Amino acid sequence: MKPSTELIASTYQKIQSEICDKIAKIDGKENFKTDHWTRAEGGGGISRVLENGNVWEKAGVNFSAVHGHLPENIKNALKISGTEFYATGVSIVMHPHNPFVPIIHMNIRYFEIGGETYWFGGGIDLTPHYIYGDDAKLFHQALKKTCDTYDLDFYPKFKQWADDYFYIKHREETRGIGGIFYDRLYENDRLTKEDLFNFSCDLGNLFPEIYGELVEKNRNKAYNEKHKDFQMLRRGRYVEFNLVYDKGTKFGLDTSGRIESILMSLPYRAGWKYNYEAEPNSKEAETLALLKKGINWV
Amino acid sequence: MKPSTELIASTYQKIQSEICDKIAKIDGKENFKTDHWTRAEGGGGISRVLENGNVWEKAGVNFSAVHGHLPENIKNALKISGTEFYATGVSIVMHPHNPFVPIIHMNIRYFEIGGETYWFGGGIDLTPHYIYGDDAKLFHQALKKTCDTYDLDFYPKFKQWADDYFYIKHREETRGIGGIFYDRLYENDRLTKEDLFNFSCDLGNLFPEIYGELVEKNRNKAYNEKHKDFQMLRRGRYVEFNLVYDKGTKFGLDTSGRIESILMSLPYRAGWKYNYEAEPNSKEAETLALLKKGINWV
Repeated sequence: MKPSTELIASTYQKIQSEICDKIAKIDGKENFKTDHWTRAEGGGGISRVLENGNVWEKAGVNFSAVHGHLPENIKNALKISGTEFYATGVSIVMHPHNPFVPIIHMNIRYFEIGGETYWFGGGIDLTPHYIYGDDAKLFHQALKKTCDTYDLDFYPKFKQWADDYFYIKHREETRGIGGIFYDRLYENDRLTKEDLFNFSCDLGNLFPEIYGELVEKNRNKAYNEKHKDFQMLRRGRYVEFNLVYDKGTKFGLDTSGRIESILMSLPYRAGWKYNYEAEPNSKEAETLALLKKGINWV
Repeated sequence: MKPSTELIASTYQKIQSEICDKIAKIDGKENFKTDHWTRAEGGGGISRVLENGNVWEKAGVNFSAVHGHLPENIKNALKISGTEFYATGVSIVMHPHNPFVPIIHMNIRYFEIGGETYWFGGGIDLTPHYIYGDDAKLFHQALKKTCDTYDLDFYPKFKQWADDYFYIKHREETRGIGGIFYDRLYENDRLTKEDLFNFSCDLGNLFPEIYGELVEKNRNKAYNEKHKDFQMLRRGRYVEFNLVYDKGTKFGLDTSGRIESILMSLPYRAGWKYNYEAEPNSKEAETLALLKKGINWV
């Protein structure tokens, strides 16, 4: 059965809630604070943030369901003629204390143009401060498995899309080890709207499982000042990506979204060092050398 | 006499050098490190950075003289038809350790389109982490005095321009207490090209004088963890402005400038706290309330 807009929104909201429960349990110290907000032009959302926990310095899980008129510049960018839009989704960014625990981002979203069309979009990508091949393999294998359930073309296509999307052009480096990214998914001969909806929910449910596993593997690793300094620089690049390139951030700023929810993705602390160069043959140098497109992590 | 392009560039380079000498003397601990760089498409520059000094955590003074073909998007943005450009200028951002010492930015630049036109642009603006009316007055009065030497319309016009330019739209707040900003200054009935050139040099020479005075006034003020936390948030807003709105940064990224020189403006450390709210009647609340356009600081 074709999922209704209401069902999509309420399911996404439930996914937000379940993710927060699981993440808070893993953290073991802090719980998420909750802010309900409304948007003057229509709709609203629920922003949930966990700050200064055991594992996470700042973890944000945002749900929103907004509607209204599309600004001209976005209409042009999306190449659509309709003006009434409806958008709902869950958006997550989590910054851990420990530099050996990766930053993660997940987003699932549904977009509708009144009487014209709809599509699903989303993605998950991992930004380890220090890259470890076995973690990267675990992560990509889990994504591939979920993708393969729906369409064998999904993983290779969406993996490449993530490589291209999560790319910091002016640094000529990827944000991390990528993951999957997709947009404008519309029903076709093989996949119904319900399938595409289920695919997005599967990703939402996969998120705490796979991230939980990576956190458990790394949360007790010892680190020192040098590792924290490098973490600050990697977070600085994360900030550069989100403010210069991220389309979700731009969409939020252009549609007068709730600023604190849009910029929840920015870390508690980040840094920039002029002309930083990693020591040759260091773990830092090894990580930087892996920030490129087209690596087969599986 | 009409200043030649070569004279403008060499004078700007001398201003860079003098500013670095004066700032290093005020700092008293560290000196500037120097990087000469060239740009594949034509020209190059000298980047000078002082890190972890007595006064400054990170202070960057950049000189560049670049030329080449203008990318299509910049041509359209500038509404010009020529394609060969030449640009030279000095660009400065300084981040102090002490939260009671303000961040400062200065830029003077000269731009030429082969056979078509030229113009001068520039500005100075101050971003105190904590705003003090007497410092703001001192700063704006000095700018007004220099402007008034050339044209009584300059200060009011350029002050408003700075209010509009150094504005973080998505936060609905100014970056700091403004200053002056101008662009596309071309000779007219009253002011020759030489006058406009001298005006930019006067600003370059004013910079270490007025900033030096503000530094001396505030460098020994005691501060604690709470003040440092607030400084991190103010720096976070600085990062937001530079990456989302600053035209110089965008021009640099679009023309494949030297990334480390363009992003030298970003602080060693910055921060973001979800939904930060200042305590009522605190110095932090007072500062935030003053981040708006149209305040007469003189």
